[in-house]
Amino acid sequence: MFQKVLIANRGEIALRILRACKELGIQTVAVHSTADSNAMHVRLADESVCIGPPPAKDSYLNIPSIMAACEITGADAVHPGYGFLSENARFARILSEHKITFIGPSSHHIEIMGDKITAKKTAVELGIPVVPGSVGEVKTEAEAKQTAAEIGYPVLIKATAGGGGRGMKVALTEADVLIAWSTARAEAKAAFGNESVYMEKYLGKPRHIEVQVLGDGQGNAVHLGTRDCSLQRRHQKVWEEASAPTVPANEQAEIGEICAAAMRKLKYSGAGTIEFLYEDGKFYFIEMNTRLQVEHPVTERITGVDIVYEQIRVASGEKLSLAQKDVQFTGHAIEVRINAEDPQTFAPSPGKIQFYHPAGGVGVRVDSAVYQGYTIPPYYDSLIGKLIVYGRTRAECLQRLRRAVDEFVVDGVKTTLPLFQRLIKEPDIIAGNYDIHWLEKFLKDNKA
Amino acid sequence: MFQKVLIANRGEIALRILRACKELGIQTVAVHSTADSNAMHVRLADESVCIGPPPAKDSYLNIPSIMAACEITGADAVHPGYGFLSENARFARILSEHKITFIGPSSHHIEIMGDKITAKKTAVELGIPVVPGSVGEVKTEAEAKQTAAEIGYPVLIKATAGGGGRGMKVALTEADVLIAWSTARAEAKAAFGNESVYMEKYLGKPRHIEVQVLGDGQGNAVHLGTRDCSLQRRHQKVWEEASAPTVPANEQAEIGEICAAAMRKLKYSGAGTIEFLYEDGKFYFIEMNTRLQVEHPVTERITGVDIVYEQIRVASGEKLSLAQKDVQFTGHAIEVRINAEDPQTFAPSPGKIQFYHPAGGVGVRVDSAVYQGYTIPPYYDSLIGKLIVYGRTRAECLQRLRRAVDEFVVDGVKTTLPLFQRLIKEPDIIAGNYDIHWLEKFLKDNKA
Repeated sequence: MFQKVLIANRGEIALRILRACKELGIQTVAVHSTADSNAMHVRLADESVCIGPPPAKDSYLNIPSIMAACEITGADAVHPGYGFLSENARFARILSEHKITFIGPSSHHIEIMGDKITAKKTAVELGIPVVPGSVGEVKTEAEAKQTAAEIGYPVLIKATAGGGGRGMKVALTEADVLIAWSTARAEAKAAFGNESVYMEKYLGKPRHIEVQVLGDGQGNAVHLGTRDCSLQRRHQKVWEEASAPTVPANEQAEIGEICAAAMRKLKYSGAGTIEFLYEDGKFYFIEMNTRLQVEHPVTERITGVDIVYEQIRVASGEKLSLAQKDVQFTGHAIEVRINAEDPQTFAPSPGKIQFYHPAGGVGVRVDSAVYQGYTIPPYYDSLIGKLIVYGRTRAECLQRLRRAVDEFVVDGVKTTLPLFQRLIKEPDIIAGNYDIHWLEKFLKDNKA
Repeated sequence: MFQKVLIANRGEIALRILRACKELGIQTVAVHSTADSNAMHVRLADESVCIGPPPAKDSYLNIPSIMAACEITGADAVHPGYGFLSENARFARILSEHKITFIGPSSHHIEIMGDKITAKKTAVELGIPVVPGSVGEVKTEAEAKQTAAEIGYPVLIKATAGGGGRGMKVALTEADVLIAWSTARAEAKAAFGNESVYMEKYLGKPRHIEVQVLGDGQGNAVHLGTRDCSLQRRHQKVWEEASAPTVPANEQAEIGEICAAAMRKLKYSGAGTIEFLYEDGKFYFIEMNTRLQVEHPVTERITGVDIVYEQIRVASGEKLSLAQKDVQFTGHAIEVRINAEDPQTFAPSPGKIQFYHPAGGVGVRVDSAVYQGYTIPPYYDSLIGKLIVYGRTRAECLQRLRRAVDEFVVDGVKTTLPLFQRLIKEPDIIAGNYDIHWLEKFLKDNKA
């Protein structure tokens, strides 16, 4: 096991990792920018090293500074958290060259999954379902009809050179496909000087469903079930649930097993998340994140598995501590992201926290790195805390969430807590009836 | 379901009940003494009524004041919490006469279980194991030998008129019994002028093991497993675990089923705890508490069952929401009681909390009613919070507890947190190897 882990991150995730290290009896090193000297993870770490000023490129993204911090402190492993250098294959390789363990997958796996085109190819090879589409350009009317029939309606026709929605048409049935194809070609020609179009399955109201996986690089891998992260604003998740509501249990087990089998084949090491769009009982691969995710606590709550423990253990060479049969799912968990933002405009709201009182009591977990008197710096992501709530059923979980959001106090800055007070009353949310477009539409329709 | 529940208590348990009511959509009424105007349960309740000054007899124990508060606010039910009026059969009866529901068992069940002699008789009738002993006085040498053989060694011989350890002798084997008997009689005669002695099973190193039960008054009852609360100081529990470590699973299931069956027979309604001494694989009934207990959260954590929900639901006439087969036990939980006391002398330490930052993160629950800037009044119990920690195994739970205790900050008053930092390093605690005398001995041997 490692003697000393350097945490190459900040905020709540740095504290999350620090806690796991403390629990496992591992010494911790915090690195921080000059703006983060008073951060909680710095206060609680065994050692800390300042690695430069904000913005992140001069500190948290500065590989030479972090390497120097490793050298100074004698850290034998680095946990990158999420964001920053967590999916930087070069960083993983440099650490490896310096005989320091990167707590994450191999640089090779980061690379093949980091590039979207390679990732889709790899997914296909591993038997992970992807969005079906034409192989290259759709050149003739006959091809358009045949490809659409193979894919299944509705289909989306997109300009090969396209972007911004131009040269993009949806065909709902066979009656539309030729018109859609020729219109798309004409628009593509006009917009890009290139009439080439391709075709793929159109998803009108997909949900974002993801599968948490864990592997030990020795051919053992398990899945920890699904999460639904459809509630997003500008592709940023704001509310996550485990297990995914509305996806039948057998489909969850099936996609989970597909992902676990793929990870076994790949000899994947560490934690990862395979993200899908889900519609009409089918999953379509989007991408894989080869790191810990913000929303990992909901999975921890329903499985009892500490994902960071597992990351650290397998990185140190241990086998996975659990087999698939050991993974039991109990109850339901929801996480909401507390951002220091105006809950109407989503403008960042840095500043000093005048009063801080997190929610507590039964079924409540709070992952936050802020405290009363702390000043949120303006340079970073606005996430200041995560509220994770558990219930035996989703209904119980929702009623707890409502209570916990109501009693959570962060004074001095604006936060997204009032947004959750609104969301939790919405019939669609209560029914679990939302797709990836729901939140944007809600915000547009309910402007204050 | 109730419209409005009055919470006849204060501190963390008042907040615990308030949270459950909020989650169930029930209006809440806080009552408080003049010393508790700024208490968190008062701030968070929908309504509040001042019921008098400290000490408790003039407010929280003042039945007419509480009845008046019910009348003013139109509450249709009262939750008594623990302590104060929670086991007062007269209070339950008065409420019932006013058509207000007492959220707890019937006054009859409070009465038969509240009196220790009746309780033991009832336990025997219900098939709950009690400490075996002689039927009345042991008058002759032959009787002494025979009774001891029936009970099984070691046995304790006690003066019928006794107290304070005089006239009390232990016989470890048959070789000792006649000497012990005659010495006890001689001492009893000398001390009390009455040589009458009786005999019971002697327990040298018992553990305190208790069983949580829930009944609906309609003949349905379940048990929610065991807790070990052996770590006590002056009969006050300071550290509780669920499930009881060191008690084999089959014995836990067996005593649980005995208790559940007894509650079914009794048509018991609400939550209750049946307390035992446990030694050499045998359970001996001590008493039953006909109310919610301080340590209920550890049971909630390993079962997922919200005990306060169940109390409220069955009091409103609903059936139990779960059958025994629905009760699944997962992992291990430990609660430590954070008291505002000097951790060496245990002298109360009321006063203003200058900085408050509860532990957070994975596996941590905090039940507390204090906040930064709150002044702990000197009039009440010194319990200010409970830290409840979960792990997949007891070892995982202990490492989380160590981390959580380390990061919990309460500045401005002294607390028992440093005691837990000491306890958690003790090999006996780590091994789960402690009985009801362990903590007193530890404190005596480790005076600062």
